[in-house]
Amino acid sequence: METTWLNENLDETIFEVGARISMKVGKKLFEGQSDFQKLEIYETPHFGNMMVLDGCVMLTESNEHAYHEMIAHVPLFAHPNPERVLIIGGGDGGAAREVLKHTSVKECVMVEIDGLVIEKSKEYFPTIASEFNNPRLTLLVDDGVKYIENHKNEFDVILVDSTDPVGPAEGLFSKSFYQKAFEALKSDGILAAQAESPYYFKKIQKELFDVLKAVFPYNTLYLSAIPFYPSGTWSFAYASKKYTEKTSPRFEAMKEMEKNLEYFNHEVYSGCFALPTFMRRVL
Amino acid sequence: METTWLNENLDETIFEVGARISMKVGKKLFEGQSDFQKLEIYETPHFGNMMVLDGCVMLTESNEHAYHEMIAHVPLFAHPNPERVLIIGGGDGGAAREVLKHTSVKECVMVEIDGLVIEKSKEYFPTIASEFNNPRLTLLVDDGVKYIENHKNEFDVILVDSTDPVGPAEGLFSKSFYQKAFEALKSDGILAAQAESPYYFKKIQKELFDVLKAVFPYNTLYLSAIPFYPSGTWSFAYASKKYTEKTSPRFEAMKEMEKNLEYFNHEVYSGCFALPTFMRRVL
Repeated sequence: METTWLNENLDETIFEVGARISMKVGKKLFEGQSDFQKLEIYETPHFGNMMVLDGCVMLTESNEHAYHEMIAHVPLFAHPNPERVLIIGGGDGGAAREVLKHTSVKECVMVEIDGLVIEKSKEYFPTIASEFNNPRLTLLVDDGVKYIENHKNEFDVILVDSTDPVGPAEGLFSKSFYQKAFEALKSDGILAAQAESPYYFKKIQKELFDVLKAVFPYNTLYLSAIPFYPSGTWSFAYASKKYTEKTSPRFEAMKEMEKNLEYFNHEVYSGCFALPTFMRRVL
Repeated sequence: METTWLNENLDETIFEVGARISMKVGKKLFEGQSDFQKLEIYETPHFGNMMVLDGCVMLTESNEHAYHEMIAHVPLFAHPNPERVLIIGGGDGGAAREVLKHTSVKECVMVEIDGLVIEKSKEYFPTIASEFNNPRLTLLVDDGVKYIENHKNEFDVILVDSTDPVGPAEGLFSKSFYQKAFEALKSDGILAAQAESPYYFKKIQKELFDVLKAVFPYNTLYLSAIPFYPSGTWSFAYASKKYTEKTSPRFEAMKEMEKNLEYFNHEVYSGCFALPTFMRRVL
């Protein structure tokens, strides 16, 4: 494969530090501009196909599990019986694929603003976008912020699987959004949201947790090792009305599910909440 | 600060994949060639001073704790009473600084092959090379492989703080080295060794664990989030004659020490041994 180095384009309005990841890429398989963002898809010599949105690497086929398994299984196994799950964003389909592995889930509603991401994920990432025809999935191409305004007390778990807080995802980092998400959850609901790098996005994390703490009674952070994101360590906010991560985790169910997973397992469930001291300071 | 991008130089004989880290650097503070390797030191706009050996980023002042606290405190707190500790490598002084925080340690012997690294660390990384004058430290500029040949049954803990297995550290990844390290440990000794990236150095990890399993009765891997190393997730081998990480960890002592640390704490101690499923396969 003929390759070239793709240097990630860092938006200095949000990216606090001078460090970037570069990846060897082969052929550009697709490039297009939607109403919301620029989508590029490359083949790579080592990581399978790779998706890039507005110059930022979103996922690679070979390492996507570290993101999708962790955003989904941690809150779903913290909840005693998740039946209705809402995903805001997640256009590649990976979060939905993991949610639908839970047989307790009767309906997973996914609200993605950008139909182009869904369409091209089906074409170039079939192992990730594998559940778009699942009858338990309700797929809406719409603005997630507007969607939750009209849905109160409906969901057991909400996943916010967004891009960075510039461009289309900006509204997903605001207090009014999390207030509405709180109301869309049932009285014992749990929310998980991608929360950027604990090394390089400390300011955004601080702002996000200031918002979450004003809305949810319980908040913490958990980690995943994601090599294609800045700093290689990524975090998710865990915000909950009732259950902490230690209240009633379903370890036996985890052990059954983990046989078919690449990243998540019952030890990782506990370990991912163990935060290095400097990361705790954001909470 | 006037800056430029420094692209890490990947040695394709050991580096399995096409991904690299680039960092913004300012002035080059030092460049020199020792008998063993090329040493460069840069100032950076965001990470303090940075050390580069043979083109690979070794450490940055701002994030060095994730490496040094983890290589030292995990094995030292797994041991009930570490009194004599040997460090092979570790020329910047960071591992020795952490070891000497343990008041149980009567002597820390450090054997670094490259005197230039020690000398320049004192000059450009004074907060890391802060304990070279500690009376409990015995500093030898020598070949660690030769040193351990003549020392049997002497140490409670050995730390192998080496560079990658090309160049001066090549001998530190061999079976004969680990056999001698085993003999240099007391009958309940513990060894910790930097063990590369679980994402990008799977082949080296497999070879290392094939060696360790042939020598030590108990072996596992633990993780640290180190943003200046490839993939951002780094691993350490934990090899032990008697104590597993769960046998007798001294949690109360950890809680006392962690008040003055940046990364390590008693929750991280347990969490760092929780391995994502794909990483377990190397064991």
